[in-house]
Amino acid sequence: MIQTAAISLDEIRHLDRHDPLAAFRAEFELPADTVYLDGNSLGAMPKAATEIARRTLEQEWSQGVVRSWNEAGWYELPRRLGTKIAGLIGAEAGEVAMTDSTGINLFKLLAAALSLRTDRRVIVMEGSNFPTDNYTAQGLIQLLGNRHSIRFVEADGIADAIADDVAVVCLTHVHYKFGHVHDMAKITERAHAFGALTVWDLCHSAGALPVELNRCRADFAVGCTYKYLNGGPGAPAYLFVAGRHHGQATQPLTGWWSHEDPFAFERDYRPASGIDQMLSGTQPVLSMAVAEAGIDIAAHAAIREVREKSSRMGDLFLALVEESCAAHDFQIACPRDARLRGSQVSLRHPNAYSIMRALIDRGVIGDFRAPDVLRFGLTPLYLRYEDVWRAVNALLEVMDSGVWRQPEYTERLAVT
Amino acid sequence: MIQTAAISLDEIRHLDRHDPLAAFRAEFELPADTVYLDGNSLGAMPKAATEIARRTLEQEWSQGVVRSWNEAGWYELPRRLGTKIAGLIGAEAGEVAMTDSTGINLFKLLAAALSLRTDRRVIVMEGSNFPTDNYTAQGLIQLLGNRHSIRFVEADGIADAIADDVAVVCLTHVHYKFGHVHDMAKITERAHAFGALTVWDLCHSAGALPVELNRCRADFAVGCTYKYLNGGPGAPAYLFVAGRHHGQATQPLTGWWSHEDPFAFERDYRPASGIDQMLSGTQPVLSMAVAEAGIDIAAHAAIREVREKSSRMGDLFLALVEESCAAHDFQIACPRDARLRGSQVSLRHPNAYSIMRALIDRGVIGDFRAPDVLRFGLTPLYLRYEDVWRAVNALLEVMDSGVWRQPEYTERLAVT
Repeated sequence: MIQTAAISLDEIRHLDRHDPLAAFRAEFELPADTVYLDGNSLGAMPKAATEIARRTLEQEWSQGVVRSWNEAGWYELPRRLGTKIAGLIGAEAGEVAMTDSTGINLFKLLAAALSLRTDRRVIVMEGSNFPTDNYTAQGLIQLLGNRHSIRFVEADGIADAIADDVAVVCLTHVHYKFGHVHDMAKITERAHAFGALTVWDLCHSAGALPVELNRCRADFAVGCTYKYLNGGPGAPAYLFVAGRHHGQATQPLTGWWSHEDPFAFERDYRPASGIDQMLSGTQPVLSMAVAEAGIDIAAHAAIREVREKSSRMGDLFLALVEESCAAHDFQIACPRDARLRGSQVSLRHPNAYSIMRALIDRGVIGDFRAPDVLRFGLTPLYLRYEDVWRAVNALLEVMDSGVWRQPEYTERLAVT
Repeated sequence: MIQTAAISLDEIRHLDRHDPLAAFRAEFELPADTVYLDGNSLGAMPKAATEIARRTLEQEWSQGVVRSWNEAGWYELPRRLGTKIAGLIGAEAGEVAMTDSTGINLFKLLAAALSLRTDRRVIVMEGSNFPTDNYTAQGLIQLLGNRHSIRFVEADGIADAIADDVAVVCLTHVHYKFGHVHDMAKITERAHAFGALTVWDLCHSAGALPVELNRCRADFAVGCTYKYLNGGPGAPAYLFVAGRHHGQATQPLTGWWSHEDPFAFERDYRPASGIDQMLSGTQPVLSMAVAEAGIDIAAHAAIREVREKSSRMGDLFLALVEESCAAHDFQIACPRDARLRGSQVSLRHPNAYSIMRALIDRGVIGDFRAPDVLRFGLTPLYLRYEDVWRAVNALLEVMDSGVWRQPEYTERLAVT
């Protein structure tokens, strides 16, 4: 049991009783008997998701069939949901579309950005970023004949890496593993000062903290909808193109939805105007429709309250770990200062994998990130401060008992 | 009412009573009071789809949450369903993955194919093909610096267009509008004789007629799952890479699912072996899971019986139109010979758009394809011969009454 002078369970419960976001928890169907701290991998299910799925299947598909492309608005989903997402990331309607996966969208935007900077050959990226971003850039570079290169840096080297040979600075706003937040305004300003463009990956930002793409003068952005937006497993991603680049920046995955007049069935490609040019082919309607439930919840929450609660939960988590787990060889792997930290805490431990599996078995679901990081996502819309207390308590129990050494926890699963 | 000496309604009902596929109809939830002849745009909903959706949402997402990537097999869906699709298109397990959209997959495979034929610069395509294929190739060519070109031909010019400057022959097996079937074996053989590779688009073939990719020595293929496979609106597509090209042909949309060890979170890309290299990012689980219902139905049907019934339905449709609509200016726009025709019939009429809208209003749902084609998909698993009779009867009624001239039918909808 946690022994701490810092805060009592009564005080924690007091925080929950006065939490202005407390009512949102009832909008989710949470896994029974768990503390779910992996909403930054897959957000919890909004209760409204089941009704959308039912309507999409039993009315729209089964009865409307092909007519539902018009009558149920399926064809408009990328734009209509894009507009809702725009409101969450400081963008305008018409600058965001929901479509495809984060990686596919990143490929489009990197290609578009490079086509605007044909005299430059360098992409600045964070080497420790979630690797799909790096892999995608590497795939594009190889396809383009290896004339470009990636300048891999870590957070503290980004400013120095931006020079006048840089075409694009491509960063994930909040780091998936270590949780540090990049200063979007400052980095974008520096990129622009050197003539470079920016592509921001918002996977760990949207719905978790205020994002102000246009205020920061960001050029491009991508993000997923299945973490803090609670859109459902693998729900389609989104992309943002600042209005000033519309008609200038074009992407190369030119499926029919990106054509100026898709239903004219012309032989030759003509780019659609506006954000539509960033679309490609037919989208998975069911996954996209269901995602609206979570996007709507995020749209109704005050993001400053979300950020405030997330910061306090993170501070509480780290304080409890520092005080009660001091004997157990954890290192804090995320910023201690909440202003520099996304909506997660990260701990390092040489046996992180086994510890996390033992924790999950005790109903505290966090995430392992190779090689040695335990990651706990903080999702203020459905977590209570008391959940943080329970999670650290369980962590302490796993460590004190040594149960994580059992073979059932050391053996690796396919998806870690 | 149809006046015909060729066949009576009694005889048609006799065909239905002795239809070996008749029982499949009960596996679908069909739109009420309609004859649904647009299954080649969006297939009807299998009844089993709702239970899969319920399980995916209420058990796997809501209760399993992130654990379901392992425990519910989400991560294996592209391979597991790919194997089922392989059985429908004459491929081996391990040669097919279900993922992304048809256009995205085509981009991958065209890029992979061009990388195997770096000394060649020509792609042979059908100019009148469904345009997403052409647009995708044009997007790739532009991205590669306009060093390649497309040799656009029509069906009768394909053989002559294949020469020793051709890198890839990229064709849709069954034409989306006119319904003609290309001779896959013959064209592939000719392509190979000239050192070219083939990419086949199976959107209008899989589930509708026998497809024998490996017997034909096809190199690559793509296809959607929402037409004859009844996978649901915009359900993810699939791709095929012949085993002999694995490890040789690599695609450039290198998201983390295409990495040799995705959960190692390495900085640099290493291609996965086998079909996994053809994956990109996280997939829309709900849309993909639900698609299994339709894929399973197709797997249980004998494709030769499907083809036989489809051919007879098409012959019946065309005979009834020829005999009863002779006064109404229709031209048959698909092959009259069933062996050369896919699972659809196509009619040309200058007022095709308005006629189709009037037909839909009378419960006969077909498709308009610009500029002047009425298209009727024949889906033997849930249509009866009597449905063909009813459809032609409704067409006759629309024409005889002239109702299609009303403004409500001439005005264009967003999605035609």
